[in-house]
Amino acid sequence: MPKIINHEERKQQIAQAMWRVILDKGMEGATVRNIAEEAGLSLGALRHYFSTQDDLLVYAMTLVQERATTRIEAVLKKELPPKEMVLAVLYEIVPINEETRAEMEVWFAFVAYVNHRKEELPIPDDGIWAGVQKVMHYLQATSLLKEGLDLDLESERLYSLIDGIAIHAMLEPERLDAERVRKTIRYHIDSICMEA
Amino acid sequence: MPKIINHEERKQQIAQAMWRVILDKGMEGATVRNIAEEAGLSLGALRHYFSTQDDLLVYAMTLVQERATTRIEAVLKKELPPKEMVLAVLYEIVPINEETRAEMEVWFAFVAYVNHRKEELPIPDDGIWAGVQKVMHYLQATSLLKEGLDLDLESERLYSLIDGIAIHAMLEPERLDAERVRKTIRYHIDSICMEA
Repeated sequence: MPKIINHEERKQQIAQAMWRVILDKGMEGATVRNIAEEAGLSLGALRHYFSTQDDLLVYAMTLVQERATTRIEAVLKKELPPKEMVLAVLYEIVPINEETRAEMEVWFAFVAYVNHRKEELPIPDDGIWAGVQKVMHYLQATSLLKEGLDLDLESERLYSLIDGIAIHAMLEPERLDAERVRKTIRYHIDSICMEA
Repeated sequence: MPKIINHEERKQQIAQAMWRVILDKGMEGATVRNIAEEAGLSLGALRHYFSTQDDLLVYAMTLVQERATTRIEAVLKKELPPKEMVLAVLYEIVPINEETRAEMEVWFAFVAYVNHRKEELPIPDDGIWAGVQKVMHYLQATSLLKEGLDLDLESERLYSLIDGIAIHAMLEPERLDAERVRKTIRYHIDSICMEA
């Protein structure tokens, strides 16, 4: 009797095959043929799940975003002091281990690939701008922020900082290793918070 | 008599054709054939200047980098107070007009395209990390910095901030327009400098 794999599991398996192909060969190697081969499926079977490469692309991007969201939700359930909670959340969205590094590489490849036709594709938002705004409001609500800060520009600043660090850590992993990534983020958060 | 175009001019013309193709069709459309057509050259003529697509890619990236350097050198010749000088330099490396926006799109496409094989290609450094370190030393030398800052982490922070803003301004030009880009950079520089 054939093994029963449900529809959603199979789609995830295909999306993960796409990620591996991208990590190995870049977006230009992420052809439907290569992805099917990596997933161990025929072209016809793959097309049963994703009728176009764009469908697969949008699904695979959504999955990267969902994985990060799941990790952040797990962090939010921990019992941590407010500032440590904020840092723990921010550390989940920068590449500081194999998993987050691979996600970042794939996300970066996706974004660059779809950039010139972002009007026509339903690209999922990575949610980081909304998340960063929540972080700033949380720091304010817990009375941790220094006086006189502009909350809107502080959000913009943190948003740029996080994505800039994420990209640099991906492109220059030796210079900007996990420890230096954490140190820079902590330095920034310390700079806007009152001393304990 | 045929028009005389020197070798270097022709190479620049081809690289600019490559940029236009990338802006219009993305990296996956930047085939040697499409670039030759955009440049108004035969495939053979193009190959006379660049024997491989990688040669052309590295040359085109170098040219983007040189254009930014030329603009920054022009700014450095102006007579500006130190803090305004720093801001003017930083504004040259973020997308706030058609020219810098196009450069950023092309650079981003290049970096993503070559990311999975950065070991084998001589990718030019964009020079921003070195430039940001110079900016921090300049602010210190002119006694503008606040007391007690960590110069190394401040450089890392400014570097992330600038590249993060550059990418966001490219991807979300309506939310993060030129005015908001300048405002965020100025806010950051103000936050590390003593009040005038």
